[in-house]
Amino acid sequence: MKFNNINVFISEKAVIGKNVKIGDNTVIYDNVIIGDNSIISNNCVIGEPLNDYYFNENYENPQTIIGEGALIRSHTIIYSGSVFGSNFSTGHRVTIRENSKFGNNCRLGTVTDIQGYVEFGDNCWLHSNVHIGQQSKIGNFVFIYPYVVLTNDPTPPSNTCIGATIGDFSQIAVGTVLLPATKIGKHCLVGAQSLVGGKFEDYSLIIGNPGKKIKDVRDMQSKDTGKSHYPWPYNFSRNMPWEEEGFDSWKLKNNYEND
Amino acid sequence: MKFNNINVFISEKAVIGKNVKIGDNTVIYDNVIIGDNSIISNNCVIGEPLNDYYFNENYENPQTIIGEGALIRSHTIIYSGSVFGSNFSTGHRVTIRENSKFGNNCRLGTVTDIQGYVEFGDNCWLHSNVHIGQQSKIGNFVFIYPYVVLTNDPTPPSNTCIGATIGDFSQIAVGTVLLPATKIGKHCLVGAQSLVGGKFEDYSLIIGNPGKKIKDVRDMQSKDTGKSHYPWPYNFSRNMPWEEEGFDSWKLKNNYEND
Amino acid sequence: MKFNNINVFISEKAVIGKNVKIGDNTVIYDNVIIGDNSIISNNCVIGEPLNDYYFNENYENPQTIIGEGALIRSHTIIYSGSVFGSNFSTGHRVTIRENSKFGNNCRLGTVTDIQGYVEFGDNCWLHSNVHIGQQSKIGNFVFIYPYVVLTNDPTPPSNTCIGATIGDFSQIAVGTVLLPATKIGKHCLVGAQSLVGGKFEDYSLIIGNPGKKIKDVRDMQSKDTGKSHYPWPYNFSRNMPWEEEGFDSWKLKNNYEND
Repeated sequence: MKFNNINVFISEKAVIGKNVKIGDNTVIYDNVIIGDNSIISNNCVIGEPLNDYYFNENYENPQTIIGEGALIRSHTIIYSGSVFGSNFSTGHRVTIRENSKFGNNCRLGTVTDIQGYVEFGDNCWLHSNVHIGQQSKIGNFVFIYPYVVLTNDPTPPSNTCIGATIGDFSQIAVGTVLLPATKIGKHCLVGAQSLVGGKFEDYSLIIGNPGKKIKDVRDMQSKDTGKSHYPWPYNFSRNMPWEEEGFDSWKLKNNYEND
Repeated sequence: MKFNNINVFISEKAVIGKNVKIGDNTVIYDNVIIGDNSIISNNCVIGEPLNDYYFNENYENPQTIIGEGALIRSHTIIYSGSVFGSNFSTGHRVTIRENSKFGNNCRLGTVTDIQGYVEFGDNCWLHSNVHIGQQSKIGNFVFIYPYVVLTNDPTPPSNTCIGATIGDFSQIAVGTVLLPATKIGKHCLVGAQSLVGGKFEDYSLIIGNPGKKIKDVRDMQSKDTGKSHYPWPYNFSRNMPWEEEGFDSWKLKNNYEND
Repeated sequence: MKFNNINVFISEKAVIGKNVKIGDNTVIYDNVIIGDNSIISNNCVIGEPLNDYYFNENYENPQTIIGEGALIRSHTIIYSGSVFGSNFSTGHRVTIRENSKFGNNCRLGTVTDIQGYVEFGDNCWLHSNVHIGQQSKIGNFVFIYPYVVLTNDPTPPSNTCIGATIGDFSQIAVGTVLLPATKIGKHCLVGAQSLVGGKFEDYSLIIGNPGKKIKDVRDMQSKDTGKSHYPWPYNFSRNMPWEEEGFDSWKLKNNYEND
């Protein structure tokens, strides 16, 4: 009962691909481009106009590009002026502001709030209720867990805005805050409810308030196996591109040889 | 103006009890059963289809049972495949995923996010913006305050999922994270913004990062009265079943004699 | 495409000012007064009825007053019985319960949750996902950042409700919890992810768990300038009333001479 074409509004200036389903009560604004085989569920807003829309009669909506194979769940609001790769998906009630750039295969959980002016690589998974401040820059295969906040203003309030950076394959556990300008390397694990500032090298296990490097993630020992779970791509492959061939083989083919 | 029967969609395969009100713009999907005297407010989705719905033409929606006397506030999304006892209520914009089981008289606050595959007993109150991970198991009369997160993956990302367990009458204060497999006994109090892992016996006061048992809750002294507020059922009875007769009398009748 | 007058419901007992725009699917309940030149975007509920509405046939909706020049973004729910000064604005999906009082020029971010029975002065900015408990009392020019929670029950659950108080110009950084009855003076800065209880004098820098006064904010030194950013009004004036004339001149005219 999601796709009855009831109260659907699609701008004449939007471009809708082949085999796209659009749910009831969804609005698609000017200059939105939606790739083939995408599903935009019910009650979504795609290409939400920027503030100027309310006050300027000559307002022109910036272009929004959603790649093919998207699955946008209900009540998601995506502002105009963002670009999403293929197979992008959201949970319910996600909000994404303007000038956000996402690679392929990214997933955002329920109520997650992207403040705009951010960059994500491919295969990033953000769980429920993550908050990404402006000027954040995130690599590939980065997973961010519920209630994590990435900040950007070192002396609030100010006109300074320096986002956090997170390297490929790093994991940020629940409830953690990254302070402005934090640099997390590749393959790091940041523990739950940490308060993290500064610069951290690849493979760091970072924990606490203030967050410190405790050890190399490769030196963590599982109680069960006696071995480290990290780097995790050797031990987790569900829905990952190395699911069939294994991480080592995939790395070689994909220029990740230094990871 | 909530109940004008405008844009209400009710599946022919749903069973609606007597004296049920359904608000405007609400959708009730296949195989939903709603008990007598319930109110489903405006803009709700009850029986939200699972992921397979989008891709499988023969998709069959699992059964959803909402007991009598429910009050579901606006914009709540309840996935199919869950069971709720009588007098269930939600705030606005609550999301509840599949295979969630709630007893009688449970209340969930605004924006609270239940990830599915969880069990709650009777009379649990979750305030605003609580996040309950899969495989959590919660007893009776458990109150969980805003921004609490129950987690389940000890080495993210992995295929391991071991939820937290909380015993009857325990209270989890704001901003606390329960780590995977945490076991909180009965009548415990977990202080605000704690990071808690491990196993805790009944009547523990648990505080800090890492969360530790500080004392027995019965040894806490109020500045005003010199006595402990805990076990709280002796000092708080609003809307509790012992409101009239007192906790001791109620316990005897209800097989809580060991608490 | 927001203002097509589709599915808009406005009570005959509401008073709508001049040059007000009301978005599609928005509902305005009885006894709401909206000031001139306001914009209420799509899918909002203004004057949401209190609980009694569902059960009492003679329910009368309390008065709600929204000052002129408001900009209420989509999916915001404002309960009846609150008062807002001029130029009030919200992000998406904000929830504001009854008996909330806001001065002029206040802004609330996406998903922020005001529990009602609170007072805010003028020019308060709450970012995304802030939670304000009942009986909180906030001064003027107070900025509160994402995931901050103001609490009110010292021994949960109880019938005691003692909110936090925050003085003019104070800043509460991300993820911080203010415990019940906390009193933050004027021009304070509370650092990220702090757990704060007790009483703090003006100009305190408060950090940690438990939150303690570390120093006077005027003694903080910027790495870049060697000077303190605080009191911030000397160094930040965007959209502030002293933007043109400077803080000292503005203070003199506005009876802030002691700040």
